[in-house]
Amino acid sequence: MEILEAIKNRRSVKSYQSRPVEREKIEQVIEAGLWAPSGQNQQPCRFVVITDSSLLGEIERELYRVCSMVKKLRPLIALFRPELRGEKGKRALRSIRERAFHGAPVLIIVGAMRDSSSTYHKDTAMATQNMMLAAHALGLGSCCMGWIGALNSSRRARKLLNLPKGFEITNAIVLGYPERVPKAPPRKTLDETTTWF
Amino acid sequence: MEILEAIKNRRSVKSYQSRPVEREKIEQVIEAGLWAPSGQNQQPCRFVVITDSSLLGEIERELYRVCSMVKKLRPLIALFRPELRGEKGKRALRSIRERAFHGAPVLIIVGAMRDSSSTYHKDTAMATQNMMLAAHALGLGSCCMGWIGALNSSRRARKLLNLPKGFEITNAIVLGYPERVPKAPPRKTLDETTTWF
Repeated sequence: MEILEAIKNRRSVKSYQSRPVEREKIEQVIEAGLWAPSGQNQQPCRFVVITDSSLLGEIERELYRVCSMVKKLRPLIALFRPELRGEKGKRALRSIRERAFHGAPVLIIVGAMRDSSSTYHKDTAMATQNMMLAAHALGLGSCCMGWIGALNSSRRARKLLNLPKGFEITNAIVLGYPERVPKAPPRKTLDETTTWF
Repeated sequence: MEILEAIKNRRSVKSYQSRPVEREKIEQVIEAGLWAPSGQNQQPCRFVVITDSSLLGEIERELYRVCSMVKKLRPLIALFRPELRGEKGKRALRSIRERAFHGAPVLIIVGAMRDSSSTYHKDTAMATQNMMLAAHALGLGSCCMGWIGALNSSRRARKLLNLPKGFEITNAIVLGYPERVPKAPPRKTLDETTTWF
């Protein structure tokens, strides 16, 4: 698949078949993440793949529990988490869903050790984008899990996933064969977004 | 160009021809950024393109000035910027170069309004990755500018670029026809980076 075409045709898929994803394809998706650039070539990205449906369910329930708590305590938490302040914070919290994983058979958590690099937030986001493009090229759908970082403060999730101390979950995608592929939302234009000098 | 191939063959190019880049190609690169996913489809990404060589030089000098100051004051600044702490902070600061833009004829700054979205850091990083892949597909080289965020605190840079209050520079790439394309640094393996459940 052509790259510019893949970039435009990739959608955030929110409805999946229960059909499992071949291990080889999951590996190709992660490999695409490993080939993303990283600050000073530190390659900080680490991946946790969950295909076990019972664990997947437990993580999804725990995510909902933690996110619901964040929603309730937003004014307090926003004191030290600027991204939860104001209208944008309220809007983000409205997007919390009980079935956050959309029935997908695979979750790939992306993260890094906090002392690994000064740019791991960017590096892991770039790796995640590579992974979503690779998934699309392999006939898979994916969707980025905006709220996954809430699990960093969950002892239960950290224990279930055996995350080492100092490990930060930064992103995650669900992965699977799409049941429905949504239409592309219209994009902002160059004129609306770009200044030239 | 095939997407998986593009992901693996893209390099961080650090040496450029002076040959200008066609406006149409720059637009295609930005368009690739606009097609990245964003939290709650808020599309927060904004772009500042600089091809004016005198302005490019001024920005490069200002970046070096600010970064050199950060280097000098690291222990103090690290108190409120965790990414500058410890070994990773020192390592990151060692990467500061006077010719940060590697002689490239184009700089594209990527950023967002701080109140636009709760996920603009991730969204802009994902857009930047799309842009580097698109550049590669168009025969261009690119390199991500890890230190560009230092310009957020420079009044001079903000004035030169006419950045509105509340606008945060999150990423930038330089862009141009490559003079030399470096070899790929070896990548960490799946075994080293991935846990399966």
